[in-house]
Amino acid sequence: MKPIRVGIIGGTGYTGVELLRLLSSHPKVELSCITSRSEAGTPVSDMFASLRGHVDLSFSDPSEGALEACDVVFSATPNGVAMTHAPTLLEAGVKMIDLSADFRIKDIGVWEEWYGQTHGAPDLVAEAVYGLPEVNRNSISTARLVANPGCYPTAVQLGFLPLLEAGVADLNGLIADAKSGVSGAGRTASVGSAFSECSDSFKAYAVPGHRHLPEIQQGLAIVAGEPVELVFTPHLLPMIRGIHATLYVRLKDTSIDLQALYEDRYEAERFVDVMPKGSHPDTRSVRGSNVCRIAVHRPQGGDTAVILSVEDNLVKGAAGQAVQNMNIMFGIEESLGIDQVALVP
Amino acid sequence: MKPIRVGIIGGTGYTGVELLRLLSSHPKVELSCITSRSEAGTPVSDMFASLRGHVDLSFSDPSEGALEACDVVFSATPNGVAMTHAPTLLEAGVKMIDLSADFRIKDIGVWEEWYGQTHGAPDLVAEAVYGLPEVNRNSISTARLVANPGCYPTAVQLGFLPLLEAGVADLNGLIADAKSGVSGAGRTASVGSAFSECSDSFKAYAVPGHRHLPEIQQGLAIVAGEPVELVFTPHLLPMIRGIHATLYVRLKDTSIDLQALYEDRYEAERFVDVMPKGSHPDTRSVRGSNVCRIAVHRPQGGDTAVILSVEDNLVKGAAGQAVQNMNIMFGIEESLGIDQVALVP
Amino acid sequence: MKPIRVGIIGGTGYTGVELLRLLSSHPKVELSCITSRSEAGTPVSDMFASLRGHVDLSFSDPSEGALEACDVVFSATPNGVAMTHAPTLLEAGVKMIDLSADFRIKDIGVWEEWYGQTHGAPDLVAEAVYGLPEVNRNSISTARLVANPGCYPTAVQLGFLPLLEAGVADLNGLIADAKSGVSGAGRTASVGSAFSECSDSFKAYAVPGHRHLPEIQQGLAIVAGEPVELVFTPHLLPMIRGIHATLYVRLKDTSIDLQALYEDRYEAERFVDVMPKGSHPDTRSVRGSNVCRIAVHRPQGGDTAVILSVEDNLVKGAAGQAVQNMNIMFGIEESLGIDQVALVP
Amino acid sequence: MKPIRVGIIGGTGYTGVELLRLLSSHPKVELSCITSRSEAGTPVSDMFASLRGHVDLSFSDPSEGALEACDVVFSATPNGVAMTHAPTLLEAGVKMIDLSADFRIKDIGVWEEWYGQTHGAPDLVAEAVYGLPEVNRNSISTARLVANPGCYPTAVQLGFLPLLEAGVADLNGLIADAKSGVSGAGRTASVGSAFSECSDSFKAYAVPGHRHLPEIQQGLAIVAGEPVELVFTPHLLPMIRGIHATLYVRLKDTSIDLQALYEDRYEAERFVDVMPKGSHPDTRSVRGSNVCRIAVHRPQGGDTAVILSVEDNLVKGAAGQAVQNMNIMFGIEESLGIDQVALVP
Repeated sequence: MKPIRVGIIGGTGYTGVELLRLLSSHPKVELSCITSRSEAGTPVSDMFASLRGHVDLSFSDPSEGALEACDVVFSATPNGVAMTHAPTLLEAGVKMIDLSADFRIKDIGVWEEWYGQTHGAPDLVAEAVYGLPEVNRNSISTARLVANPGCYPTAVQLGFLPLLEAGVADLNGLIADAKSGVSGAGRTASVGSAFSECSDSFKAYAVPGHRHLPEIQQGLAIVAGEPVELVFTPHLLPMIRGIHATLYVRLKDTSIDLQALYEDRYEAERFVDVMPKGSHPDTRSVRGSNVCRIAVHRPQGGDTAVILSVEDNLVKGAAGQAVQNMNIMFGIEESLGIDQVALVP
Repeated sequence: MKPIRVGIIGGTGYTGVELLRLLSSHPKVELSCITSRSEAGTPVSDMFASLRGHVDLSFSDPSEGALEACDVVFSATPNGVAMTHAPTLLEAGVKMIDLSADFRIKDIGVWEEWYGQTHGAPDLVAEAVYGLPEVNRNSISTARLVANPGCYPTAVQLGFLPLLEAGVADLNGLIADAKSGVSGAGRTASVGSAFSECSDSFKAYAVPGHRHLPEIQQGLAIVAGEPVELVFTPHLLPMIRGIHATLYVRLKDTSIDLQALYEDRYEAERFVDVMPKGSHPDTRSVRGSNVCRIAVHRPQGGDTAVILSVEDNLVKGAAGQAVQNMNIMFGIEESLGIDQVALVP
Repeated sequence: MKPIRVGIIGGTGYTGVELLRLLSSHPKVELSCITSRSEAGTPVSDMFASLRGHVDLSFSDPSEGALEACDVVFSATPNGVAMTHAPTLLEAGVKMIDLSADFRIKDIGVWEEWYGQTHGAPDLVAEAVYGLPEVNRNSISTARLVANPGCYPTAVQLGFLPLLEAGVADLNGLIADAKSGVSGAGRTASVGSAFSECSDSFKAYAVPGHRHLPEIQQGLAIVAGEPVELVFTPHLLPMIRGIHATLYVRLKDTSIDLQALYEDRYEAERFVDVMPKGSHPDTRSVRGSNVCRIAVHRPQGGDTAVILSVEDNLVKGAAGQAVQNMNIMFGIEESLGIDQVALVP
Repeated sequence: MKPIRVGIIGGTGYTGVELLRLLSSHPKVELSCITSRSEAGTPVSDMFASLRGHVDLSFSDPSEGALEACDVVFSATPNGVAMTHAPTLLEAGVKMIDLSADFRIKDIGVWEEWYGQTHGAPDLVAEAVYGLPEVNRNSISTARLVANPGCYPTAVQLGFLPLLEAGVADLNGLIADAKSGVSGAGRTASVGSAFSECSDSFKAYAVPGHRHLPEIQQGLAIVAGEPVELVFTPHLLPMIRGIHATLYVRLKDTSIDLQALYEDRYEAERFVDVMPKGSHPDTRSVRGSNVCRIAVHRPQGGDTAVILSVEDNLVKGAAGQAVQNMNIMFGIEESLGIDQVALVP
C-alpha cells in the first residue's frame, strides 16, 4: 500500500504540533505539507525543537496548491478557516478532517449565534460526519468530510452515552462539571493564559454559556432521541493537558447495574477504558494517549450516578481522535500510530 | 488590655504553621507555647525557615503544663487528639479551639462510624459550638470550646446557606462538586501526596464517601430545618492552597433574585465577599486571605442555580477561621490579625 | 504625623498590584492615586479581585495632575516612561521611586545600548540614588529620586557583597547562575509567558547578554573598587514568584571564615537573613516577604565559595524594596508595612 | 529473530514504570517477568492505570526463578539490591543492565564511602561496563553487565565531553550547576518530595556533596586523562521530569570554534542533538524522549564557555538509556523502541 499523503492547514498551534507528533511516526503516513501563512518558509522544527530529527518539512503558504495533492488534509486552524478550504479540497478529491468547530453543529442558525459569524459553506454541514468513532464509525468510514469533535464534547458524550442509550437517565437536569488544562485555550498570547495568571489557581469560566454546550446537547439529543437539558460548567485547571468531566445523572431506574452497562457498551472499543468499580481515573493516566478512561459511581446508593471521564484534550480530545478518524476513513487499523502508552509520571 | 496568651497543640503541620503565621503578627496575642512530642526542643524556625525572625519559641512537650497557663489553646492535631486534651484544659479555665474533627459532629454514632474510633469526650460534644461565625457568631462569643469547621464544609455551607435559609432550594439532590489543593491532605509523607503523583494531573477521590459529608449535611439540615440529600464529590487540584466548590441547586422558585439574596445575606460579613453578577472567582484571589468569595449564576435562565465559592483551605478553611473565632470569643475586633490582602500573582 | 500621600504610575502590572497589596495596609500611607492611561475610570478592584475591600480607588489618567499633589510617587511602568515623568514631579517637590530601569545605570551610553532608546532625562541619572538600602541607606534617606534595583541585581549583589567588601574574591570569573519565576516577565500577553509554554519545563535564556548584567557589574565594581568580570546566566523557573541565585566565587584566601563574614556583614540588616551553616534556602521561605535569605558553602573544602541567595522577585526584588526605600526617605521605621511572614506552604 | 525475553527487578518505582512504557511497545521485546516482593500477585496495571491494555503481567516474587529464564534483566531497585542478584544471573547466562549505582564506581572504597554500605560483589565491578553509549559503545556491545549511568552524570558528562576530549578546558574549576525535576527522587513517601513542599518553590540541595559527584569525576577523568576539579550543585525544580545542566568551563584556548566542535563530536549520535548557535534548549523539548539536547555559548566573547544540556531524567537519564544499551548489547538497531517524539506542550 502506498503511504497516505497528509497535509495540515495551520500547524503552528497545539493541535498542529500534536498532529505532527502522531503523524511523523505513523507507519502508513507520508507528511506532505504543513501550511502557515505567517510562518511560510520556516522549518517546522525551528518552532518546535521537539520535532528536530522527526519532521523535516518547512511551513508553506496554503495558496501554493500542495494541499490539493494530498489524500487527506487536517485543518487545525481557528474557527472560520476550514470552511473556506473545504469546497476546493473536496472538489479536488481530497478528504478533509476539520479539528475546528466549522462543521460540528448541524443547525446553521445555532452555529452562527454561538460562533458570531456567517457560515461560509452551509451546504457541506449536512454532509459532514461528526467524528466520534464510538458513535459514528460506519459513517466515518465513507465520509469525505469529518467534523472532529471538541475536547469537552468528547469526554462528556462518552461519559453520558451508555446511560442515555439505555434510557435510564432523567434528561431534565444533566450536569457536566468539566475541568480542562490550559492547553485547551490554544497557543495564544493572552494575559488570561499566562503562567502567572493560571498557575497555582483554579476557577470556573463561561458559566453562563460555552460554545461546546450546543455541540454536546446536539450529540446527546441524537442518542437520547429527544432534547436534553444540560448544565455545563467548564473550569480551568493549573496543568497543561487533560480534561476531567464529572457527570451527574438522576437515574429513573436505580436497579440497573451501572458497571456492567458501561463495560458492555465499551467492551469492543480500543480507546474507551472502563475502570474497575470504585476507581478514580486521573488525567495523567491518559497524558499523551488516545484513551478516554471512565469510572462509574452511585454514592451512598442514592439515585444519582456520578460518572468520571478523563481524556487528554490534545489527543482523544483533538489530534489523536482526528488520526483515529483518518485510520477509519482509509480502512486501516484504527489504532495505528495512536497506541502510545501515557507518560506517567 | 493584656495580650491573650495563646498555646498551640501540634504545630508541625500546615494548619500549625499557618496559625503561627497569623498569630505571630496578631496585635493582641502573645504566643506562649507550641507543643509537639516528636519535636520537643527544636526551635520552630528550624522547621519553618519562613518564621525566622518572627517566632522565637521552641516546640515543647505537651505534658509540661504550659498549655494550662494559656488563655486559649488551638489544637491543630490529627483527629482523636484534641478530645484527650479538652477536659483538662477546660477544667483549668482555658478556652479551646479545635481545628480537627473531634467536636464537629453532634451525633456520636455518626462520628464514630466515619472516623473509625471511639469518642473520648462525648459529653463535651454537646457543649462545643460549631465555629462558623456567619451562622453561630453569638454562641461562639460565649463558648468555652469551639469546633472549627472543616475546609470543604466552610466553602460548601457558605455557598448553599442563603438559598436554604430562603427556602427556595429543592433539598433532594443538592450537588457539591468540590476541588481542593494538595495542602488539604496535610504535611505528611505519602506517595499519594508526592509532587510527581499530584502535579500536572487531576482526579476525583472518595466519591463513595468523604468524612466531610456528614459535617456538611448536619450544617445544612440545621439551616434548612430538615434533612438534605447531598452528593459531595471532592477532587484533588495540582496546586497548594485553595478550594473551589461548584454547587448545583434545583430552584423551587425561579423568580427569586439570586444576586440580591446573596448580597443581602452577606452584606455585614467582613469575610464573605459576593462578587458582581457574572463573575468567576479564582482561588488565587483569596490565597493567604481569610475571605470566602462567592459568585451566583443561573445558566440559560434555567431552574438550576450554580454557585461558585472559593476560599483558602488553610485560612478561612482552617487557621484564619480559628483566629476569627478567637477574636469573637475574646470580644476583640473580628478581623484583627486576619485582614491580609491575598497574594496575587 | 500626617499620612504619606502616595501615587502610583502604572498600577496594572505585577509590581503595581504588589505595591497596592503592601501600601494598602501600610499604617502611615494614604493611597492617593493610581494612574493608567488604558484603564482610566476602572476600579482597581475590578482588575484585581484580591484587592476588593482593601483598595477603593479607580485608575485615573496620569495627565490629571493628581500625581503632583502626592508626597511620593512610585513608577511601576515599562522602561522609558518614568524618565518622562521625573522632571515634572521632582520640580513639584514630589519624591520619586522608580521601579523600572530608567535611572539605574550611571553610564548613559551603556544604558542606551542595552535598553535601545535615547535617555530622556540624562541630567537626573547622576542625581538618582541606587536604592539598595544595605549599601546606600544614608544616600537614600536624603534622596529626591531613587532608582529601585532590578530583581536579579538585588539577589546577586547581596550574595556577592561581603566577599567583595572583604577583598577575598578573585574578580576574574565571578559566576551568577540565576533562576527566576515567570512573574519576572511581567503581566503581559506573550506566547513565551503562556502557562502551556512555561509549566513543567525549564530553560536558560538570554545567555549571550541580559539587561541586568551591566546593572550588576556596576554595583559590584563600586563595592570592589575595580571592574569585575561576571558571567550571568538567567533561567526561567516553572513557578510564579521567587529568584534563586547560585553564585560561584574563586577565593584568593581560603582561610577566611565565610559564615562569620556573612553573619557579621548582615547582622544589623532586618531584611537579609544569613542561615546557619549547611543550609539550603528555598524560595518559598520568602514568598510574599521582603527578606533576602542567604546560605554560604565551600564544597569539599575547595577554593570555590558557593553562595545561595533567594528573594521574592516582586517584594525584595521590586515592590517591597521600593516601600523599604520610601520608609527610609521619610524617616519612619524601615520595616513598616513590609514585615509580613512568608506564605508557606 | 526470536524476541528478547526481558525481566525487570523492582518495577514499582518511576524507572520501573518508565521501562514498562518503553519495553511494552518495543518491537523486539517480550516482557517475561516483573518482580516486586511487596507487590507479588498484583497486576502491574492495577498500580499504574496508564499501562492498562499495554501490560498484562502481574508482579512476581524475585525468588521464583523466572528471572534466570530471561535473556536480559533490568534492575530498577534501590542501591544495594542489584549486586545481590548479579552473580546468579550472570552465572545463568543472563545479561544484566543495572539502573542503580551498584556498578558505576570503579573504586570500591569510594563507592562504599558515598553509599554507606559494604559492596557485595566487588569482583563484578571491574567487569561492569559503564553504559554511556556515546563513550563506551563498543564495550557495551559485548558486555554481560552494564552499569547504567545516573541521571545527572549523563547530562553533565555529555555536556563536558567534547571540550575535555579536545583538551581545551581548564580542569581546575569546572562547574556544573544542575537542576532536576522531582521524579529524580523516586516514587517514595517523604515529606521532602510532597507536592506542597516542592511546588511553586526552588532550592539547591546537597551542596556539600552529592553521590553523583564521584561518578561524574570518574567519567570526566577518564576522558581527560587526568583528575578534574568539579563543583557540582544540584537543585530541585518544581516539575516532574527533566534535568538542565548549566556547565561553566574556563577555556585554555578561546580561538576554538565551540559550535563546530560539538556538532562534529555528536554528528553520528542519534540521541545527542546539538542545537544551532544561540539556542536555549528547554527540558520539555525532550520530555518522554531519549534525546540529550545541547547548546553552546561563550558570553560576551569571554574565556568562559557556558554549555546548556537537557535530558529527561527518566529516559536518557535512566530507562531510555538502559533500553539503548540493551539494543546495543543484542546487536539490534540502537533506536528501536526509544525513538518517540517528546510530548510538547
